[in-house]
Amino acid sequence: MDTISLTSPADFHCHLRQPPMSELVTPHVSKGGFRLAYIMPNTKPPITTTVQAIEYKKQLQKIEPNVEFLMTLYLSPDLTPEEVKKAKAAGVVGVKSYPRGVTTGSEGGIESYEVYYPVFQAMEEAGLVLNLHGEVPSDATHNICVLNAEIAFLPHLLKLHTEFPKLKIVLEHATTRQSVETVKSLGETVGCTITPHHLAMTADDWAGNSWHFCKPVAKFPDDRQALQDIIREGHPRFFLGSDSAPHPPKSKSTAMPSSPCAAGIYTSPILLPLVAHLLESFGALHRLEAFVSTNGRKYYEYEVPQGTAPVKLERAPLQIEEEWKLDGDAVVPFWAGKQLNWSIAQ
Amino acid sequence: MDTISLTSPADFHCHLRQPPMSELVTPHVSKGGFRLAYIMPNTKPPITTTVQAIEYKKQLQKIEPNVEFLMTLYLSPDLTPEEVKKAKAAGVVGVKSYPRGVTTGSEGGIESYEVYYPVFQAMEEAGLVLNLHGEVPSDATHNICVLNAEIAFLPHLLKLHTEFPKLKIVLEHATTRQSVETVKSLGETVGCTITPHHLAMTADDWAGNSWHFCKPVAKFPDDRQALQDIIREGHPRFFLGSDSAPHPPKSKSTAMPSSPCAAGIYTSPILLPLVAHLLESFGALHRLEAFVSTNGRKYYEYEVPQGTAPVKLERAPLQIEEEWKLDGDAVVPFWAGKQLNWSIAQ
Repeated sequence: MDTISLTSPADFHCHLRQPPMSELVTPHVSKGGFRLAYIMPNTKPPITTTVQAIEYKKQLQKIEPNVEFLMTLYLSPDLTPEEVKKAKAAGVVGVKSYPRGVTTGSEGGIESYEVYYPVFQAMEEAGLVLNLHGEVPSDATHNICVLNAEIAFLPHLLKLHTEFPKLKIVLEHATTRQSVETVKSLGETVGCTITPHHLAMTADDWAGNSWHFCKPVAKFPDDRQALQDIIREGHPRFFLGSDSAPHPPKSKSTAMPSSPCAAGIYTSPILLPLVAHLLESFGALHRLEAFVSTNGRKYYEYEVPQGTAPVKLERAPLQIEEEWKLDGDAVVPFWAGKQLNWSIAQ
Repeated sequence: MDTISLTSPADFHCHLRQPPMSELVTPHVSKGGFRLAYIMPNTKPPITTTVQAIEYKKQLQKIEPNVEFLMTLYLSPDLTPEEVKKAKAAGVVGVKSYPRGVTTGSEGGIESYEVYYPVFQAMEEAGLVLNLHGEVPSDATHNICVLNAEIAFLPHLLKLHTEFPKLKIVLEHATTRQSVETVKSLGETVGCTITPHHLAMTADDWAGNSWHFCKPVAKFPDDRQALQDIIREGHPRFFLGSDSAPHPPKSKSTAMPSSPCAAGIYTSPILLPLVAHLLESFGALHRLEAFVSTNGRKYYEYEVPQGTAPVKLERAPLQIEEEWKLDGDAVVPFWAGKQLNWSIAQ
């Protein structure tokens, strides 16, 4: 197989930031082969209201008119059942929950879910999706650190699904076998995104390399295996969410020992070739369209618009750029300088 | 308690490298409060013969005449039972084993122990100590990565101790509860070193901060707790080995995404104040002398030389330097810029 034709690839977890960074990275969504991007709300300040979400969508559309942007709100005390209804009416698709302090832009994250039950009730009724960053904060007294923060979160997912069985809930960027097994065991309303970098890495890859540091961190080889296996078997509730997260190079390098680097890995501009390369490496290339388009679109009920031209991949080497720049801004992609086996056909 | 008088502190795991780096770091042993240092042989090339070890010791003594250097050989096919006898006669104390490829300077490390049984037999008879870097190489097909490489090594320790019960074996820089429990369960010939940085850190500390990356990596809060507990309870077979490992700043920072940084944390010049600070933080200051002097000296049978003046600590703030320089070389210490509660009294 030397060419692949894909129906309207959709990235169901993407960070596009604000100007000037958004001007650099937003065009990379289509450059990376995608026609739909589900946009995270952890901007500064975060997107907590419908008005902000609509304004943010307009900004992004102005930069890149050829991509469909699905917007989300940041779960916070600002979010009321009334605002949920307003958001739904305005076309907002989901609400993202960040436990407090676990990753980039999570300073205003939640500490307990119970207080949000009226909001979740309204979301369930309106048909908004709850997107979960599935990690609990580190806590030495309970033996929690980055290594087990995701597994320790799974009881929250179980409880939310039990309380709100009709609420669509997506466990974002799963990294462990336990998460895969948990999502599989739950009902049809629970979905799960998987990033390309978690299909590629284990803990060995971010140990000593801050460019490979993201949250949740990549775990054991067996965890990576579970992520690869669930894609290869074609489970319909698992789909691509790149979690592509641009950071300025100075916040990813650790030239100074005083502070750790920002969590996040940038994959947008190479996303489709990277995913094809990875899926082929573990014998799942026949699931490419399901993983990058069909499964996620079905879960979110975003059918491919009629008349959409397919995106074509060809088996041709793609040298990954060392850096992308625009004016004073720059961003370094995952696997910078490496070569992928697939390119987007021009 | 505002002053502490300590009898001849001994660091039973120290990297001093070669010129010019050794000229910068060797004086830091006594600056850090230590009168004895057990020197690792993973220089370039490694110290594999008695002749090299004696020459290396002379180099170090020339730089720093006030410290006793105990020398080791690097376990490799060059080491024969005859060389073991020669080493013992010349005053070499131990043999260090690095599994292949797991840390700095381990490219020539061992892949299987059976082939070395004649050497271990000779060491047991001669009274040389076997120092183990207790990690197996990463191996995705067996689910081994940096997170479980130490636990996967413990069966090797058990087997070696069973085969050579009179051979003194030290599990170096233990990082897990399982390692602590295993060493406790074994006979009097098995010792264990603990580093200050593993008393301070968990995986959260090196995630995204390459300056805190060392091998073995720091693990869970409960593992750190086990290391702290065994010191607080005063177990005699657990003692300080700093694993202080100087690297040029450019090999510790990750300014470029292409390659990971070197494994190693540098603590020599602040070692005794740092250990006092840490032990006090978890209620084990009363074990300071046992941990930094008595236990290790007893295990190695290196009594304090008569007439040795004690080293005095006082409760006075010590601001850790950002960097030490000598000519073109530099090294950045652990906790650079932070403040410790204890200083060495002048």
